[in-house]
Amino acid sequence: MTSDQTELFAALSRQRIETPSWGYGNSGTRFKTFAWPGAARTIHEKLDDAAEVQRLTGIAPSVALHIPWDEVEDYTALRRYAEGLGLSIGAINPNVFQNDRYRLGSVTSPDRQTREQALQHLLHCVDVMRQTGSRDLSLWFADGTNYAGQDDLRSRKHRMREALQQVHGALPDGARMLVEYKLFEPAFYATDLFDWGAAYAHCLAVGEKAQVLVDLGHHAPGVNIEQIVAFLLDEGRLGGFHFNARRYADDDLIVGSSNPFELFCIYAELVAAERSSDAQTRAAAEGVAYMIDQSHNIEPKVEAMLQSVLNCQEAYAKALLIDRDLLAEAQAAGDVLGAHRVLTDAFRTDVRPLLQGWREERGLPQDPIRAHRESGHQQRVAELRGTVAGGGGYPEEPVPTPV
Amino acid sequence: MTSDQTELFAALSRQRIETPSWGYGNSGTRFKTFAWPGAARTIHEKLDDAAEVQRLTGIAPSVALHIPWDEVEDYTALRRYAEGLGLSIGAINPNVFQNDRYRLGSVTSPDRQTREQALQHLLHCVDVMRQTGSRDLSLWFADGTNYAGQDDLRSRKHRMREALQQVHGALPDGARMLVEYKLFEPAFYATDLFDWGAAYAHCLAVGEKAQVLVDLGHHAPGVNIEQIVAFLLDEGRLGGFHFNARRYADDDLIVGSSNPFELFCIYAELVAAERSSDAQTRAAAEGVAYMIDQSHNIEPKVEAMLQSVLNCQEAYAKALLIDRDLLAEAQAAGDVLGAHRVLTDAFRTDVRPLLQGWREERGLPQDPIRAHRESGHQQRVAELRGTVAGGGGYPEEPVPTPV
Amino acid sequence: MTSDQTELFAALSRQRIETPSWGYGNSGTRFKTFAWPGAARTIHEKLDDAAEVQRLTGIAPSVALHIPWDEVEDYTALRRYAEGLGLSIGAINPNVFQNDRYRLGSVTSPDRQTREQALQHLLHCVDVMRQTGSRDLSLWFADGTNYAGQDDLRSRKHRMREALQQVHGALPDGARMLVEYKLFEPAFYATDLFDWGAAYAHCLAVGEKAQVLVDLGHHAPGVNIEQIVAFLLDEGRLGGFHFNARRYADDDLIVGSSNPFELFCIYAELVAAERSSDAQTRAAAEGVAYMIDQSHNIEPKVEAMLQSVLNCQEAYAKALLIDRDLLAEAQAAGDVLGAHRVLTDAFRTDVRPLLQGWREERGLPQDPIRAHRESGHQQRVAELRGTVAGGGGYPEEPVPTPV
Amino acid sequence: MTSDQTELFAALSRQRIETPSWGYGNSGTRFKTFAWPGAARTIHEKLDDAAEVQRLTGIAPSVALHIPWDEVEDYTALRRYAEGLGLSIGAINPNVFQNDRYRLGSVTSPDRQTREQALQHLLHCVDVMRQTGSRDLSLWFADGTNYAGQDDLRSRKHRMREALQQVHGALPDGARMLVEYKLFEPAFYATDLFDWGAAYAHCLAVGEKAQVLVDLGHHAPGVNIEQIVAFLLDEGRLGGFHFNARRYADDDLIVGSSNPFELFCIYAELVAAERSSDAQTRAAAEGVAYMIDQSHNIEPKVEAMLQSVLNCQEAYAKALLIDRDLLAEAQAAGDVLGAHRVLTDAFRTDVRPLLQGWREERGLPQDPIRAHRESGHQQRVAELRGTVAGGGGYPEEPVPTPV
Repeated sequence: MTSDQTELFAALSRQRIETPSWGYGNSGTRFKTFAWPGAARTIHEKLDDAAEVQRLTGIAPSVALHIPWDEVEDYTALRRYAEGLGLSIGAINPNVFQNDRYRLGSVTSPDRQTREQALQHLLHCVDVMRQTGSRDLSLWFADGTNYAGQDDLRSRKHRMREALQQVHGALPDGARMLVEYKLFEPAFYATDLFDWGAAYAHCLAVGEKAQVLVDLGHHAPGVNIEQIVAFLLDEGRLGGFHFNARRYADDDLIVGSSNPFELFCIYAELVAAERSSDAQTRAAAEGVAYMIDQSHNIEPKVEAMLQSVLNCQEAYAKALLIDRDLLAEAQAAGDVLGAHRVLTDAFRTDVRPLLQGWREERGLPQDPIRAHRESGHQQRVAELRGTVAGGGGYPEEPVPTPV
Repeated sequence: MTSDQTELFAALSRQRIETPSWGYGNSGTRFKTFAWPGAARTIHEKLDDAAEVQRLTGIAPSVALHIPWDEVEDYTALRRYAEGLGLSIGAINPNVFQNDRYRLGSVTSPDRQTREQALQHLLHCVDVMRQTGSRDLSLWFADGTNYAGQDDLRSRKHRMREALQQVHGALPDGARMLVEYKLFEPAFYATDLFDWGAAYAHCLAVGEKAQVLVDLGHHAPGVNIEQIVAFLLDEGRLGGFHFNARRYADDDLIVGSSNPFELFCIYAELVAAERSSDAQTRAAAEGVAYMIDQSHNIEPKVEAMLQSVLNCQEAYAKALLIDRDLLAEAQAAGDVLGAHRVLTDAFRTDVRPLLQGWREERGLPQDPIRAHRESGHQQRVAELRGTVAGGGGYPEEPVPTPV
Repeated sequence: MTSDQTELFAALSRQRIETPSWGYGNSGTRFKTFAWPGAARTIHEKLDDAAEVQRLTGIAPSVALHIPWDEVEDYTALRRYAEGLGLSIGAINPNVFQNDRYRLGSVTSPDRQTREQALQHLLHCVDVMRQTGSRDLSLWFADGTNYAGQDDLRSRKHRMREALQQVHGALPDGARMLVEYKLFEPAFYATDLFDWGAAYAHCLAVGEKAQVLVDLGHHAPGVNIEQIVAFLLDEGRLGGFHFNARRYADDDLIVGSSNPFELFCIYAELVAAERSSDAQTRAAAEGVAYMIDQSHNIEPKVEAMLQSVLNCQEAYAKALLIDRDLLAEAQAAGDVLGAHRVLTDAFRTDVRPLLQGWREERGLPQDPIRAHRESGHQQRVAELRGTVAGGGGYPEEPVPTPV
Repeated sequence: MTSDQTELFAALSRQRIETPSWGYGNSGTRFKTFAWPGAARTIHEKLDDAAEVQRLTGIAPSVALHIPWDEVEDYTALRRYAEGLGLSIGAINPNVFQNDRYRLGSVTSPDRQTREQALQHLLHCVDVMRQTGSRDLSLWFADGTNYAGQDDLRSRKHRMREALQQVHGALPDGARMLVEYKLFEPAFYATDLFDWGAAYAHCLAVGEKAQVLVDLGHHAPGVNIEQIVAFLLDEGRLGGFHFNARRYADDDLIVGSSNPFELFCIYAELVAAERSSDAQTRAAAEGVAYMIDQSHNIEPKVEAMLQSVLNCQEAYAKALLIDRDLLAEAQAAGDVLGAHRVLTDAFRTDVRPLLQGWREERGLPQDPIRAHRESGHQQRVAELRGTVAGGGGYPEEPVPTPV
């Protein structure tokens, strides 16, 4: 093995992709949640499935939790359960959108009691972090308005600021809060954290532990995500990613499935920062949390997650192959197409043989998808867990009696 | 009253806006369906609410049904119930998206049995039309794919064609099928009826009773809807509208709430066709079905519907005020800004006094929103019907036992 | 006159809209620049036309310059010429995009000498400011890349930062630099100042005199501009506007012509800040520069500018009519549609009578467009100046001999 | 060589990409046309450059003309000149946008004389076709409006229909007219041929020789182009392509440079049709004209064209590798991710070795870009032709004296 290959393999071995507990259960659109045979029903089943993904890929050893969907009485026990599977608990994701109180927002609601309730939940999640040993609190707010005038935009900004400040103050040492932004949905006029600039401005204001979280599906059409990534890395405020793919809106498709070149370009910026001569930039790159956040509506849950992890791996491997010296040279010379080709040459390389080699060395199955399909995992869980009728979607039957 | 005013009032009296039964019940996004106190639970309650809208506006005398949400054993009885409230049954909307079988599509599914099941439901809806006396079968398909390669696009097109042909063949005399298109959602790679051109091509192929249905929320960013309206009117294939408002995706907001000028421009094309010197164009305009299709997530249901009907009324009233002779003159002269101002002069006119006059003449409340708020309707239904826990959204609680 | 009306009139009298010198000359798309009879050919003719707009509207007393298009030897003389017409010189707009050297960027070019040349031009413009008495340096950069990999995104960011710092350091007391951002065009992969967040981050870094400039045409589809306005006002970094309208890209249409409600919502945020109880917010609102930036391709130049100024006036007048107390009350109560209607009630008001009253009081023509059309200005300048063959667009004739 | 490889090579040898004469000259944005050393100045120089592209790639043997940019007195001589270079004359592209008369449109102008002038130019181009032996008349219209109300949309549609009918009637046997559509630019409110549906409807109406032309840069964000391709192929109305890449608008970048997977998916549909068991579908695929239409603003002209041809070749080669049987099987089984992977497996394959083999067999340089760079062509033409000052863009200097 050449020293280049050694370095490549080492980098590939360091790669990490966190999978989300909610990606193993049924999910859907507002129209319908399709029931998948064997979809995980409890956090323990979700961890079991995540262990399968980790077993097959070797780079997905942590799992993000969503509270209260994954709420348990004893988080220490849960942590031990995960560890028993070779997993750790990753980011904690609060849920402040799924209660009738949150109709007008959670931390930005005009109603003080609602804001207080949301804040208490966020602080509870900070408490969960302590028990699970999580570094990151991952904050996504559905907060926003549907109509011009519905609420005062600056007041909502102030309320958001205040909540973020309070959560920041409660974070333990070494912990971080990742502030996610989104163009729209479920708010359809104005989302309170509407883009990276808004998230960034709040992070600057509340403190060093606040970092911006980039979800690939949360941008307006045409927005250049890798440039936002480069900008935030350079400002030392890129906290992490929620990976998925978008063609239209927050489509939540398998990451890399709609424009694999875009995913590659994002990783190209990350590798550039990892390899920067500037220590601060390298540190910024090292802190980035790589997490999947997808809603698999029609796909087999575990296979979809496997595919997502593998797509990230391929993109990263290709980004590692970029000839950085040649690139810098072409860029300095103003060689527009020559520089572009340095990137596309790496992208066009078929990295499957490289990854097979790496997997072999690591004792991993050479084709994780096939290994999964042949493992019988899907049939086993289908039998064990059955098929849970999906929630979600419009009413399927005459609406039940009032509560 | 001048003869101009007489004509205006007559036109306003002819305006019709059909409201959808599902707009009176709870609905939501994939994240959450908020429970609204008193939201209608049954088709009878929905008709009761629609009657309130008709009582206050005088231009919303028909109600679209959604099958099976509004399925009843005896449609003749339902029709009589509606008539007792001063209402008629409008378009019939089949539902071929809310069954686990439809995961890969309904009439375009690769599975023959699934297609057959979907077709049977569509034919059942044609049967319902006969009983309710409905003119229009309103066809929206969630069918599509999420990933390149998932299914063969041309095969799906053939399956769609075949289903539309069969339904067309089953339509009674005088009935029509309205073929709706949509850019995306719930399909995120390719929607089988993806734009007006696709719907139009299918309509041409299947026959005279097939017309295109324009839903204002189903277009890509920037698309000029009034131009599509003008084009379809001119080709004699504009079947009707699903009114709502869009800023980002299929936001399903109150029609006219995000760009009232756009709604006005759409009505401007319709009024131009109504007043055309060409009989065929006038006939095309007369056949258009005006229907609301909105998903009120955070708004009071009946008030939201009232607001929508009133927004359509204002847009129509303004369009009626366009000085057509002056417009034609400026257009012929190539007076770019002069012609534009003929439109904006009408748009800038405050038509509220005009509409008050019309309401007075018709014995309608002058301010329908205030009249509704003062009527106690909301309090009454809240008490009577209670608050139904919303379905929809992600799982709120530990997932129930398997079915 | 009631005290309300007095206050309204006073506010209307304080409104200012700066017109751009380049809006009075021919401009075009890449396909063609149409020659308009009498389009201004020199800065003096442009000022003459601007004086006509000011004469008719009374709220457009300043004119932005574009250097070197408007370069003169003696700026003091130019200033006196303007003053003689009742005008002042407004913002200075450097041009660092129209030289073959700038093919790969100006201040962000990989070529040091090019960056130096661009910087020198910017500093020259600061010098012009001193002579013209301008407060604002308006900075728009065409800088960016067309292909992934073409240049290093972080390096370009550093170069941009350095240039902005140098210009900031050179600004005289009381002067400001307005940093404009743009989604795309002429760069088609990555624009160095790609959105408000990027501009804002740079402004924070370079100092207090740096403020963000919002051009209404420079956003991705769906982006909520009034929210950016509110956010920047609240952060004390909203420097000003470039007004125009966009449906698709940077269409540079007459402001308010494609969605007048959006323009109204933007003014609604500005009026809210003007009337804030918070002194800092009021100060932020007072500092905002209101400037038109449009490219009139097919419209009469002066009439187009008049229309734009009047559209801003109407939007502002309507925003002044918003019942702020009622709005706050409805918002506090979570009355979604009630609060929205407070806004739309103001928007639907026909403010033409109000503005006629104000014009009468100010001795202005009641219908500025008609007054302009009847003034013979257009015929006069057409005769005097002739029709200048448009530059721009693709080659119309066999390409001239090489230089 | 295996029989599979023989077949692959045969398919690759049949591939054709037509290059546009205008791609070899300077072009730009409205802001600036950068002067490229040696950019072609005349149609003969353009053909010389095209011959270089053909020499290096072997699949670009025809050149599209743009009239009047490429107007010559003797087209027979021009044809012989091309043939002497191993080239043929391809599609004829009329220009009805670059005359002051066309300010309000060409064939849809409200002015009859303008329409007549445009029509005469179109008929002149049909005449040119006869002399050049071109099969295709490629019709793009800049026609449209910038403001609501500016002109009557249905009247413009009628005028478009009439012009297309007249041109259709003038076409010689075996000739076709390709009708191009575009979302926007230079029209910013409504483009008369606004989408494929509009072009398709006109084609149906005017006759069998009218086909739709798909330009990859002319769609709204999110639009699925390969689905339009599949739809038109199936309806027998896909005339051809204008290849380029788009991220934001009609960016006119090198085809495949912003989302290579999309280009692959388009070719996947074309190969599927080529290999269809249905003779009509195969015939539809065979008739498709593959043409590049790009505006190289900052790139070396010939190298940019080479890159574009090669990108199409790679996309086609990958599409040829799709395992059609496996794909059909997975699709029939409803194996969502399995079917998707059949496509991505082909896409991820590095086809450079395959193409090298093919080039070797054909006696072509193995690396056409390197061969071009090493050929000295660029230096030669730079010396010979010099650097022509770009037209286009805003005025660089004080505007010239009136004409």
